[in-house]
Amino acid sequence: MTDRAYALFEEQQQVRGIDLNEVRSKLKALRIETPSWGYGDSGTRFKVFPKTGVPRNPFEKVEDAAVVHRLTGLSPTVAIHIPWDKVEDYGKLKRHAESLGLGIGAVNPNLFQEEDYMLGSVTNTEAAIRRKATDHLLECVDVMKETGSRDISLWFADGTNYPGQGDIRKRKAWMLESLRELYQALQPDMRMLIEYKSFEPAFYHTDLADWGMAYNYALKLGPQAEVLVDTGHHAQGTNIEHIVAYLIDEQRLGGFHFNSRKYADDDLVVGTVNPYELFLIFYQIVLASRDTNEGIRQHVDNIAYMIDQSHNIEQKIPAMIRSVLNVQTQYAKALLIQHAEIEEAQRNGDVLGAEDAVRRAFEIDVTPLLHSIREEQGLPLDPMRAYRESGYGTQILTRGKGGAS
Amino acid sequence: MTDRAYALFEEQQQVRGIDLNEVRSKLKALRIETPSWGYGDSGTRFKVFPKTGVPRNPFEKVEDAAVVHRLTGLSPTVAIHIPWDKVEDYGKLKRHAESLGLGIGAVNPNLFQEEDYMLGSVTNTEAAIRRKATDHLLECVDVMKETGSRDISLWFADGTNYPGQGDIRKRKAWMLESLRELYQALQPDMRMLIEYKSFEPAFYHTDLADWGMAYNYALKLGPQAEVLVDTGHHAQGTNIEHIVAYLIDEQRLGGFHFNSRKYADDDLVVGTVNPYELFLIFYQIVLASRDTNEGIRQHVDNIAYMIDQSHNIEQKIPAMIRSVLNVQTQYAKALLIQHAEIEEAQRNGDVLGAEDAVRRAFEIDVTPLLHSIREEQGLPLDPMRAYRESGYGTQILTRGKGGAS
Amino acid sequence: MTDRAYALFEEQQQVRGIDLNEVRSKLKALRIETPSWGYGDSGTRFKVFPKTGVPRNPFEKVEDAAVVHRLTGLSPTVAIHIPWDKVEDYGKLKRHAESLGLGIGAVNPNLFQEEDYMLGSVTNTEAAIRRKATDHLLECVDVMKETGSRDISLWFADGTNYPGQGDIRKRKAWMLESLRELYQALQPDMRMLIEYKSFEPAFYHTDLADWGMAYNYALKLGPQAEVLVDTGHHAQGTNIEHIVAYLIDEQRLGGFHFNSRKYADDDLVVGTVNPYELFLIFYQIVLASRDTNEGIRQHVDNIAYMIDQSHNIEQKIPAMIRSVLNVQTQYAKALLIQHAEIEEAQRNGDVLGAEDAVRRAFEIDVTPLLHSIREEQGLPLDPMRAYRESGYGTQILTRGKGGAS
Amino acid sequence: MTDRAYALFEEQQQVRGIDLNEVRSKLKALRIETPSWGYGDSGTRFKVFPKTGVPRNPFEKVEDAAVVHRLTGLSPTVAIHIPWDKVEDYGKLKRHAESLGLGIGAVNPNLFQEEDYMLGSVTNTEAAIRRKATDHLLECVDVMKETGSRDISLWFADGTNYPGQGDIRKRKAWMLESLRELYQALQPDMRMLIEYKSFEPAFYHTDLADWGMAYNYALKLGPQAEVLVDTGHHAQGTNIEHIVAYLIDEQRLGGFHFNSRKYADDDLVVGTVNPYELFLIFYQIVLASRDTNEGIRQHVDNIAYMIDQSHNIEQKIPAMIRSVLNVQTQYAKALLIQHAEIEEAQRNGDVLGAEDAVRRAFEIDVTPLLHSIREEQGLPLDPMRAYRESGYGTQILTRGKGGAS
Repeated sequence: MTDRAYALFEEQQQVRGIDLNEVRSKLKALRIETPSWGYGDSGTRFKVFPKTGVPRNPFEKVEDAAVVHRLTGLSPTVAIHIPWDKVEDYGKLKRHAESLGLGIGAVNPNLFQEEDYMLGSVTNTEAAIRRKATDHLLECVDVMKETGSRDISLWFADGTNYPGQGDIRKRKAWMLESLRELYQALQPDMRMLIEYKSFEPAFYHTDLADWGMAYNYALKLGPQAEVLVDTGHHAQGTNIEHIVAYLIDEQRLGGFHFNSRKYADDDLVVGTVNPYELFLIFYQIVLASRDTNEGIRQHVDNIAYMIDQSHNIEQKIPAMIRSVLNVQTQYAKALLIQHAEIEEAQRNGDVLGAEDAVRRAFEIDVTPLLHSIREEQGLPLDPMRAYRESGYGTQILTRGKGGAS
Repeated sequence: MTDRAYALFEEQQQVRGIDLNEVRSKLKALRIETPSWGYGDSGTRFKVFPKTGVPRNPFEKVEDAAVVHRLTGLSPTVAIHIPWDKVEDYGKLKRHAESLGLGIGAVNPNLFQEEDYMLGSVTNTEAAIRRKATDHLLECVDVMKETGSRDISLWFADGTNYPGQGDIRKRKAWMLESLRELYQALQPDMRMLIEYKSFEPAFYHTDLADWGMAYNYALKLGPQAEVLVDTGHHAQGTNIEHIVAYLIDEQRLGGFHFNSRKYADDDLVVGTVNPYELFLIFYQIVLASRDTNEGIRQHVDNIAYMIDQSHNIEQKIPAMIRSVLNVQTQYAKALLIQHAEIEEAQRNGDVLGAEDAVRRAFEIDVTPLLHSIREEQGLPLDPMRAYRESGYGTQILTRGKGGAS
Repeated sequence: MTDRAYALFEEQQQVRGIDLNEVRSKLKALRIETPSWGYGDSGTRFKVFPKTGVPRNPFEKVEDAAVVHRLTGLSPTVAIHIPWDKVEDYGKLKRHAESLGLGIGAVNPNLFQEEDYMLGSVTNTEAAIRRKATDHLLECVDVMKETGSRDISLWFADGTNYPGQGDIRKRKAWMLESLRELYQALQPDMRMLIEYKSFEPAFYHTDLADWGMAYNYALKLGPQAEVLVDTGHHAQGTNIEHIVAYLIDEQRLGGFHFNSRKYADDDLVVGTVNPYELFLIFYQIVLASRDTNEGIRQHVDNIAYMIDQSHNIEQKIPAMIRSVLNVQTQYAKALLIQHAEIEEAQRNGDVLGAEDAVRRAFEIDVTPLLHSIREEQGLPLDPMRAYRESGYGTQILTRGKGGAS
Repeated sequence: MTDRAYALFEEQQQVRGIDLNEVRSKLKALRIETPSWGYGDSGTRFKVFPKTGVPRNPFEKVEDAAVVHRLTGLSPTVAIHIPWDKVEDYGKLKRHAESLGLGIGAVNPNLFQEEDYMLGSVTNTEAAIRRKATDHLLECVDVMKETGSRDISLWFADGTNYPGQGDIRKRKAWMLESLRELYQALQPDMRMLIEYKSFEPAFYHTDLADWGMAYNYALKLGPQAEVLVDTGHHAQGTNIEHIVAYLIDEQRLGGFHFNSRKYADDDLVVGTVNPYELFLIFYQIVLASRDTNEGIRQHVDNIAYMIDQSHNIEQKIPAMIRSVLNVQTQYAKALLIQHAEIEEAQRNGDVLGAEDAVRRAFEIDVTPLLHSIREEQGLPLDPMRAYRESGYGTQILTRGKGGAS
C-alpha cells in the first residue's frame, strides 16, 4: 500500500507541476535542534510532575537526544543550557555526543534562576549584578569554543512587575551595554540570537518584549546579531509569519524556538494547536528560499530550527519525537505549494484563488512522501512506534525519579 | 492639614448630596480575607525566590495575617489551604487565631499538587483517583466544622493539554458527581464557592473554564452553591463587572479572589494594573446594595472578599497590606458615586453625562475620608509606614529562609 | 487517477477500521444554510466596496443561493434577514425558492439599523422603543409562518459604550421580558436560537455577551430556546469546542454561525484561519453523535449549520461556495477519527497517543472521498471551477452595482 | 470652596516637594490637536447614526474645533483629512481658522476609501494604483505648504485578508518605495509621522502592523520620519508605555493618536477605559522631559498630541471637550509624580515603594489645580457645562442631518 500511495502521490504532484526531487532534497536537509532541557523535568508554577527515567546529567540528556535523531534523522544537534549542563570538560561532552552521532548546538545562558537576578540580570540596578550577568554570558562564549557551537541563544527574563519598579530607558541602555560586550567576545563565525517575549515571568514590562526591540539591538550590534522567534512569545492576535517574512527581508532572522500555545506561553508540542500557522511560517520561508536575491536565499539557509517546549504531562522522548515530526510534516506541506498559481492569482486580484492555492498544499497528506524519504534514509517509517518498540523507554526507568531539570 | 482636608472633603460631598454617614458605616463594615498562602513563598515556573522571614507553619501564617488586620482593621479572617495548613488540632489553630483577633475563613482544598492528579483530580479517568479527590473535599468539610468556616472555596486545576486527551463531556459528568457528594456533606450554614479559570495549568481545555460553567453547576447543586470570581481568571477583553452584575442579579455571586493582571493570571497586587476596573466592579456591587429588591440587597451583603495573589518579588506582609488598602480605596470611591445623576443621564440618553458621573467619583481623592475613619477606629493613618516602624518585618527574619509555601 | 485515489483511500480507511458507508451517509446528510445577506454588499467601517452583479432584491439573493446549492449539494436552505428581505408576499418568495430547489431557512430579525436603536433595542431605557423592538420580533414569527421556517435566529447589538451609560441589571430584565413574549408567540415546532457576542458594536458591555448568558436565558424560557454559537464571537483564547461540547451535553446547542477570525469578529471565510479549530468542533459533534444517550444523539441531529460572514473583498458567490466546501472538508475529516484508539489512549493516560489519534484524522486528505460522493450525487467534482465555467458570474454583471446589502 | 481647595492642594504638594510653578507652566503649554473628522458622523460597520448639527464642510468643522479650544484652551490646531477636507483654496481655510484662533495641524492622506484601493494602495500589486496613491501623498505635501502644517500623518489600511493574497515582502518594498518618494518631497521643517495598526480593515496581515515596522521605515528614511502611536492599535496585552519609552529613547516618537479601547480598536473617548494606562504613558514622557540628555528633552517637547476617535453614539463637540480634558487630567497627575522617591525605591529594590509612589500621584484629585489654571487663563472652570450653557449645541441644529464624515 505504501508503494502505491507514493506512486499516486508522485503522479498527483507531477500534475501540479511540483519538482519532487527538489522537495525531497530540501526535506533531507531539514535539521531541527532539540534542547537538552526538553529531556528533563519541567512544569507549571503549580506543580512539576517528576517523571521516572529522566536523565540525571548532561551526558544522559545527550543520549536521549541521540535517540530522537537515530529514529527521525532530523535532529543531529542538541542545544545546551548553562549552568544546567555545566560539566568540567566540555570536550568530553562533545566527544560523547559525537560518539552518538550528535553535535552540540546552541549554547543558552541562564540568567533567571539565581536569587541575585530577582530584579533583573543585565538590567539590574546594581552594577555588580549586571557585571555578574555579563560575565556569565562571556563564560558561555568560552563554552561555545569548546563545544564548537555556532550560536549563543539569548533569552532574558528581565523586566518589572509594577510601574516605577525600574527605569525602562536606563534598563534599555544597560542591556545594550551588556550585549555589546558579548558581541565583542564573539568569534567571527559565531552568531548571537536575540529572543524576545511579551511577558512572563515579568508581568508589567519585559525589557526585551517584542521583535522590534530584538531587531533594534541586532541593528546596533552588527551582522552577527540576529533575532530568534519563539512561536509562543507573542500577544494573542499577532501574525507571526508576517514577522518572519519581515525579518527574512531584513536578513535578521536567526532562528526559531518552536512550540505551541493556545493561551499564553503554553509551551506545548509544536504543531498541536494550530498546525496551519506553522505551515504558514514555512510558506514564508520556502517563498524566500526561491527569491531572486541571493542574499535572501543564503540567509534562509542559515535559519536555526530549534524546539523549546516545557513538557508538563507528556513523556519526554516521545514528545520530542512527535515535535520534530510535526515540524517536518508542515515543512513538507509548505514545499508542495504551487507558487506560480499564487502569483497568478495575485496578479489577477483573485483573493479566493490565492487563498485556495496556499491552503490546498496544507491539505495534502504528506505521509507517502515522508515514508518514502525515511525508507531511502534507512529510518523507521513510524518513528513513534519504533521508539515504543525499541525498549529504550523501559531501559531508562532504571535512572529513577528526580532527574535534572 | 488632615483635619482641614477632611472638612473640605465633607463639604464637597455634601454639595454632591452624598450621605457620608452611610459611606462611613459601609466602609467600616468592609472585610477582606487574606490567604494563609499569601504569606509563604510563591513564584513563577522559572523561579521561586525564597524570602527570609517567611512563616514556617500555619500558626506563624496566622500571626502574619493578624498583623495585617491590626494595622488596617480590614482583615479579620484568614483563609486556609489544605493540606498546606494541615494541623493535628484545628481547634488549636482556631484558638491561636482568636487570641490574635482573627477568625479562620474559607477552607481551600488542594487538588493539584499530588502526582495522582497529573491528568485530573475529580475528572480523572481513573475512578480511584476521583474517589481520593472527593474524599479530600469531604475532609475539608470536616476541617470547616472544626474551624467554624462558612465557605469552602473550590478551584480545580483539572483540564487537558491536547485535543483527545480527555473526554470533555465525561469529565463534566464526573465533576458534577463529585460536587454533588460534597454538596450533600455541607451543613445548612455552609456555602460552596465554585471558582473558574480560563487556562493554566491546563492549556487546551479547563474543565471549569468560565463563569457560565461554574454558574451552571451551582444551579444544579442548590442554593448553597455560588460562584467565585477571581479577577485574574478571564480571557483578555472580558468585562468582569458585567459578569459580577449578572451573577448578583441571579443571586449566585459568592465572592471574589482579588488580584491584578495585565497579561495572563499574573497574580499581582490587586488594584495596580487597572484600578478603574476594580472601582467598576464595586460600582455594580454598590448599585445592587441600593436595589429595591431585598433579596438582592441581602445577597450583596454576603459576598466574600478575598485576596488571592502570588507575590513573586514583593515582601509578603507589606504586599498584603497594600492589597487590602487598594481594595478599600476603590470601594470608598465607589461609595461616592452620585447615582441620581447617573440615572437621570440614563433617562435622557446622555451617554457622556453618565460616563462622567461614574468616572468623577473615581477621581475623588479619598485619603481624607480613609484617614478620618482610621482615626476613629484607632488605626494608624498610614498602615504601610506603621508596619515599617513596627519592627515586625525585622523580628520575623529570625525565622530564616525556606518557610512554607 | 481519481478512481485509484479513492480505491487507495478506501483501503487505507479499512485498515483503520473506519466504516466508510456510515461516513458517506453522514456526509450526504450534511446541510449548511447560507445567508441571503452574504450575497449582498458588506464591508468594514472604513469602506464597503460595492461589487458589480450583487442581487438587487430578495428574489435575486435566493437565485444566487440556489447556485451554491446546485453546485455543492450542501445548501438547500437560505436564511433571511428582516427587513432586508422584506417582501409583500412571503409565499411568493418561498415558491420562488422552491422552484429553484431551495427552502427558506432561519429568519433573522434586525434590531440594529434604525436610529431608534442607537442606545438599545429590547434593552432600551425607553419603553416605547422596547415595545417596537419586541413587535419586530413578533413580526418575524409571522414571517416564519409564511416561509415555513423552523428557527428564529436572534442577535442583539444591544450594549453600552461606557460605564454608567446603562443599568446592566435592568437591561437584563428587559431583555428577558422581550424574549419571553417572543417565546410565547412561537409555534410548538419553532425554535429560538439565541446568539451571543463579546463586543462590537458595543464596546463597554454587550447585553448578551457570552454563551453563559445565552444559555441562562434559554433555561429560563424553555425547551424551544437554544444557544447559537457564532465562531467569531469569542474573546481570544476561548476554547470554542469546549463550549460546543458543554452545550451539547446540556442539549441546548441550537446551531452555528460559521466564519473565521484571526483578531476580532473578522467574518472571513470559514476554515481559512485555523482549520484545525473547525475540525475540533466537529470532533465534539461526531463524538456526541455516537453517544449511548439517545437524547444527545437526537440533539446533535438538529444542530443548524449556517454561514454568517461579511465578505469585504471577495466575490460573493465563490466565497460562499468556498465556505460550504470548507465546512464539508473538516466535517469529513472529523468523521474519519478513530474513536476506539482515542478511548484506549485515554484509559492508559497516553496523552501523546490521544493527541496523535485526533490530529491524524485531520491530516488525511479527504479529496478522494469528497470527489466520490459528488460523483455519486451527480455534482461537479470541483464546484469552484464549475462555477467559473458556468458563466453565472458574468451573467449577473448585468445587475450592475449598488445591489442590496 | 475652590480657593480653599487650591490652597490645601498647594500646601499638600509643597510637603511632597513638588514645584507647582513648573507644573503649572507645563500644563499651560499642553496642546492637544483635534481632528476635523471627529466632528462629523462616524460609526461602526453595523450602522452610522447620523447626528443633527454635524458640520457640512471643512469650514464648519473648523468652527466646531474652535469652540473646543475656546472653552478648554487646549486645542489650538485642528488636523485635516484629504480628500474629506478638500477645498479649492486652502489659504482661505487657513485664514478662516486663524480668524477663530486656530491653526491647521497635521494633514492626513486618505488611502482607503476609493475602490482602487480595495487590495492595497501603496502596496497594491498594480503599479498604476501605487502611483496614484503616492501622488495623493505628494498632493498632501502641497496642501501642507498652503496650510503651514508641520506634520503629515500616515495611516495605511493596506494589508491582506488571507494567506497568499499578497506577497508580504514585495508589499514591504513597495511601501518603502512610496515612503521614500514622499520623504524626498518634504520640506526641511516638515515631519512624516508613521502610524501602525495591528488589524482592521485587513484581517490577515497589515503591511504596517506594529511599532517595529514603523520604526524600521523611519530609520531607513531619515530624521524627519518618526513613529505615531495610536493608543488603540495594539494587540491585547501590549505595554504601550514601554513602546513610548523605547521610541523616546531612540528619539523617534513623533506623536499620538489618543483614544480608548477595551476590545479592539474601539475608538472611544480617551481616558474612559483604563485612565491609569494614559497616566503611565505620561509618566514616561514626564520622566524623559527631566532627562540629563538634552536631545531627549527636546525630542519630548516635539511630541504631537492628537485625538483620533470615532464617536458612534456620543454628541460630537462635547465628546471632544471631554477627550481633551481627560488628557489634561492625566498629564496633570503625571506632573505630580515624586521622582526622587521612585528613584530611591529603585535603588533600594523596594518594589512596593516604587509602585506606590507612582500610583499615589494618580490618586491625587487635580481638580483644584486645573480650576486654578483655567481661572488664570480666563477659561470657564467647567468647560462641559460652559458648552451646554453656550447654546452652541442648539445653534448648530440648523445645519440639519447628513453632514460630512
